[in-house]
Amino acid sequence: MASTNLTFATREAHRAWLGAEGALPEGFRCGAARFEFVPVEVHKPSKMALTLIALDEPTDAFAAMFTRNAFPGAPVIIGRRRLEAPRLGAIIVNNKVSNVCAPGGVESAERVCAAVASALSMRPDEILPSSTGVIGWQLPTEAMLANVPSAVAALQSESIVPAAEGIVTTDLYPKVRSVSVGDGRIVGIAKGAGMIEPNLATMLVYILTDLDVSRDVLRSALRDAVEASFHSMSIDSDTSTSDTIVALSSKKKPCPSEQAFRSALEKVCWDLTEDVVRNGEGVHHVMRVTVTGAPTRVAARAIGKSIVNSPLFQCAVCGNDPNVGRLVMAVGKWVGEHLPGADLSRCAITMGGVPLLVDGVFRLDPAREQALVDHMKGAELYASVAPPDGLTFVPPIRFPPHEKCVEIEVALGLGDASCTVLGADRTHEYISENADYRT
Amino acid sequence: MASTNLTFATREAHRAWLGAEGALPEGFRCGAARFEFVPVEVHKPSKMALTLIALDEPTDAFAAMFTRNAFPGAPVIIGRRRLEAPRLGAIIVNNKVSNVCAPGGVESAERVCAAVASALSMRPDEILPSSTGVIGWQLPTEAMLANVPSAVAALQSESIVPAAEGIVTTDLYPKVRSVSVGDGRIVGIAKGAGMIEPNLATMLVYILTDLDVSRDVLRSALRDAVEASFHSMSIDSDTSTSDTIVALSSKKKPCPSEQAFRSALEKVCWDLTEDVVRNGEGVHHVMRVTVTGAPTRVAARAIGKSIVNSPLFQCAVCGNDPNVGRLVMAVGKWVGEHLPGADLSRCAITMGGVPLLVDGVFRLDPAREQALVDHMKGAELYASVAPPDGLTFVPPIRFPPHEKCVEIEVALGLGDASCTVLGADRTHEYISENADYRT
Repeated sequence: MASTNLTFATREAHRAWLGAEGALPEGFRCGAARFEFVPVEVHKPSKMALTLIALDEPTDAFAAMFTRNAFPGAPVIIGRRRLEAPRLGAIIVNNKVSNVCAPGGVESAERVCAAVASALSMRPDEILPSSTGVIGWQLPTEAMLANVPSAVAALQSESIVPAAEGIVTTDLYPKVRSVSVGDGRIVGIAKGAGMIEPNLATMLVYILTDLDVSRDVLRSALRDAVEASFHSMSIDSDTSTSDTIVALSSKKKPCPSEQAFRSALEKVCWDLTEDVVRNGEGVHHVMRVTVTGAPTRVAARAIGKSIVNSPLFQCAVCGNDPNVGRLVMAVGKWVGEHLPGADLSRCAITMGGVPLLVDGVFRLDPAREQALVDHMKGAELYASVAPPDGLTFVPPIRFPPHEKCVEIEVALGLGDASCTVLGADRTHEYISENADYRT
Repeated sequence: MASTNLTFATREAHRAWLGAEGALPEGFRCGAARFEFVPVEVHKPSKMALTLIALDEPTDAFAAMFTRNAFPGAPVIIGRRRLEAPRLGAIIVNNKVSNVCAPGGVESAERVCAAVASALSMRPDEILPSSTGVIGWQLPTEAMLANVPSAVAALQSESIVPAAEGIVTTDLYPKVRSVSVGDGRIVGIAKGAGMIEPNLATMLVYILTDLDVSRDVLRSALRDAVEASFHSMSIDSDTSTSDTIVALSSKKKPCPSEQAFRSALEKVCWDLTEDVVRNGEGVHHVMRVTVTGAPTRVAARAIGKSIVNSPLFQCAVCGNDPNVGRLVMAVGKWVGEHLPGADLSRCAITMGGVPLLVDGVFRLDPAREQALVDHMKGAELYASVAPPDGLTFVPPIRFPPHEKCVEIEVALGLGDASCTVLGADRTHEYISENADYRT
């Protein structure tokens, strides 16, 4: 697969579509450098983008959350230390190599941070490193050091789009979302969970704001927003070794109210979450599953994830096949394992508003089956087309044609808690993206 | 997809290959009837096989284990009651419709049991029902009642193959395994977890023996054997609503020792487990993952399953791509969530005997990469071929060419427990089997 699916045409189209959404908040600059290198693990040239996001002045208002994977990448190990630092001034992001369990990984990342710090007249512990790409490969440290000056030279204060483009791998388009609060703004960018070239599911999210909030408020608000958004999403159930979300405030604008800030941050996070799923690897359908009547919110989310992560239900959705037995299976799978003895005789399930299970018993007939098919077809982003080589399926679109989802509601009848979960179907394009690039 | 992939040619070839393995133990008969019906939920004729496995005399030595899914099928609900009954005399199995959450499902299954009981001069509670197929559809009760006499008329005592063939759906071949103990035998049959038409992942296993063991020994031995075999397997992580394993003894032959019986039963279960994975939906590679150095056996199994169920690693294996970063990711995903703070700095991982992670750090180079590719290619059952319509991938083989696996060993360095887990890759054929049959 190509290192990036972005073409000049789509980049221009995307910038036009973004318009003012892509403007940087006050107090930030960003830019990227691109170069070739040869990984020591394989004899094949590869391309890297080195993206720099810098504050005009280091800030004490920064927050970050990282993967829970027990093999965290070196940037995650360093990032956790940085959380204790007094200030953060810049983020340096590379794609292509995730720097996970690699020999000397932490030292390599710190050398790059030191070079960036020197070029920006900051302290090394004011620079946060981030990496995404192949797990196992070593950072091309010398090539990165040689390109730090180019990244610094590329810094500009107009648009976040160069950063949103720099951090992607095989994302179909860069993801930028923003919300205004008073005179200030919150702008977030993400690279997709899934749709990653060539070898990794990971997610990087950077949220920049000029709204003046304290470190404590920013960290608490980020935790809550992530809980309500990114933590309720799954493309393929695999937890990356590099997942990282960072929020930075330049404090240049007054914040009208903490509640307004929290709501805006949650909206940016939720919008980016939807974008990530919609741009996920090979996704034909986004599924939005709302589980109500659960004993706890944790259970509601887990049941929603059991549905969106069921390979069989994912395939059924891919085929516009209302095989809702698999939906019921996925609910029962989780409840049987985690709430043994729970009584599902009041359980009700709808898809696209069509009741298909009432009081634990199916209500299926040819008319309802047709209504379910129509709902699924209406939510389809695209259908597979036979590829020229017969094997390598490539998504035929650059932008999603709509933002419709397959809407599923599960009322468990077991309590009062609820949660909404986002997921996606499983398709030939996902298999090709992740298996066929050597054929 | 066709209702069954078995052709006359493959059936004959398979019977020849099985030879004496397919002989029924003493005291058993089996047979099947086939007929058409129209499900009330869709306007499309469908085919069903009704398979009967009968003891010459009802036995008190029977054991059964069922799915933990919280939406169990009607036959599972009835089967749990039957465990309390004094004797079991026959099993009546239908494919095509799983009878899960269907209106009046338990009553329909009991009517079929009563008809079988009457025809065999047994009591209704001596008949165990089993169903597999679409979740949500209702049993075609009248058509099944009309065909009970044909199933009874088909009973014969020579071979278990008619039953092994009757219970399949889209399995590529029937699965039969046997072991002799003294003068007696244990013979087991299974239908695949996965490779199920059209809509369901389920597994049915029936184990027949003429060895004289008590009900208590049989139930305890079955529990232990299942723990060591079927519970260590995953095709697609979806827990069926119908999973059922039944063991019956006719007690016609003396049992030399309980330990010999237990070992033989475990071997039959493990062999069937391997068969089920090897015949799983779209499987190109079987993965055998041995996790050692775990704090508990439960953790070792869960980590093995985290590896074989990782969609990204499954795709890498499909593509013969030694993307072992995903393997490490899958280990870290589970450990990070369930053993937070665990120290993986002693972790070592090999694939095909090639060390790729030592003391928590990757040891990759072009020579090792090539060795890993060679190992994966050597374990491949088949490669995808471009289908005539460009979309509908069909497995090109009828029998597995070999029994090689992708061999993975993970030494965690966290304790003394271990477990071996079986799984499979994720392929275009799986997607086609489960999504494309309406295109």
